[in-house]
Amino acid sequence: MRVVVNAATSVDGKLATRRREQLRISGPADLDRVDALRAEVDAVLVGVGTVLADDPSLTVDDPERLDAREAAGRPRQPTRVVADSRARTPLDARVLDGTAPSVVLVSRAADLDAVSALEAAGTTVVTAGEGRVDLSAGLAALAPLGVDAVLAEGGGELVFSLFEAGLVDELSVYVGSLVIGGRDAPTLADGEGFVEAFPGLTLESASPLDDGVLLRYAVADR
Amino acid sequence: MRVVVNAATSVDGKLATRRREQLRISGPADLDRVDALRAEVDAVLVGVGTVLADDPSLTVDDPERLDAREAAGRPRQPTRVVADSRARTPLDARVLDGTAPSVVLVSRAADLDAVSALEAAGTTVVTAGEGRVDLSAGLAALAPLGVDAVLAEGGGELVFSLFEAGLVDELSVYVGSLVIGGRDAPTLADGEGFVEAFPGLTLESASPLDDGVLLRYAVADR
Repeated sequence: MRVVVNAATSVDGKLATRRREQLRISGPADLDRVDALRAEVDAVLVGVGTVLADDPSLTVDDPERLDAREAAGRPRQPTRVVADSRARTPLDARVLDGTAPSVVLVSRAADLDAVSALEAAGTTVVTAGEGRVDLSAGLAALAPLGVDAVLAEGGGELVFSLFEAGLVDELSVYVGSLVIGGRDAPTLADGEGFVEAFPGLTLESASPLDDGVLLRYAVADR
Repeated sequence: MRVVVNAATSVDGKLATRRREQLRISGPADLDRVDALRAEVDAVLVGVGTVLADDPSLTVDDPERLDAREAAGRPRQPTRVVADSRARTPLDARVLDGTAPSVVLVSRAADLDAVSALEAAGTTVVTAGEGRVDLSAGLAALAPLGVDAVLAEGGGELVFSLFEAGLVDELSVYVGSLVIGGRDAPTLADGEGFVEAFPGLTLESASPLDDGVLLRYAVADR
């Protein structure tokens, strides 16, 4: 399983304001780059916090990219995957709108009625982990569904958990030219944080894009 | 008054771990760059949180840079300035060690005994602001001391306050190739955070340095 993390942050590492309001950090070239990244992978992964805050669709927009996927014998859209320990994904969330397959990864702490409702709505539910989703097991369970490459798009809790589990192979960060600030604003990697054994990255490139800069890293095995 | 902010962060915008432990993010080339930046300015500014956590000296290390300052008729070392609303700078802090002039900016909420102790130790104390230091007034009060250019080196509370007050002219961030993580770890810009009217930056350059990348921005007038 190959996992690429991609996100857009302010210069101070924030994904959004302290109010979690959606904020357009990227410009058109970066949004097109993300569309291309989605078209390359089998699944797009986000945390439930991102679904609740932003209600993204996570689909590929460009018809040519969709046609190219089909021509290659792949599903037209990548599968949308939500890491959602307690099955809080709303049934009317865009990630469940039927335009692409959807999987919700839950833990055994998830409410069974909520799980049943998701399944009744046509969503595949994968249970992995006790109080929180076990991301290693959850992603491994996607392999039989044809998922070998995953693009994780945040938020900061999911990104930290992926790094903590040693699952990240590549990291791309578009750094927009603004300061958001805020000790309570979400950052690229939140969670408990590391205090030692920090994931080591290798800078692959730093390229101006739109009004900001795209930083690309390979992640060393831990 | 020209204010340059310089800091080193992880890819996720953190200045340190959640434990505030000092962490060498920069490499030798970046440390030398910071030494050169200090040699260019009249004063180096930090928040008291940085003094309490890291106890930095904030002096120029390179003897040639010090000699060049003297040859140009300037003080051998830049003045160390601490933004310290409640006069909590310890008397044995390195910034007060006498190797360079020291100024502590306090608010009127500062304990008068603590202020007297600082002054008795040979430190210039400037009072500006009620409950918190008024940075505009505090920096303006440094002008008669020959301070026209200031390098602010953090932490995140000070950096946010400087941006909030519209005082920042340039921002340099060395982004080290590691992930620190942590929703409670200090970031480049903490404070309350902006929710609108974000300070606008113009990316001047993105240059690989040591194992990371140096991002340089000009800051638009707000």
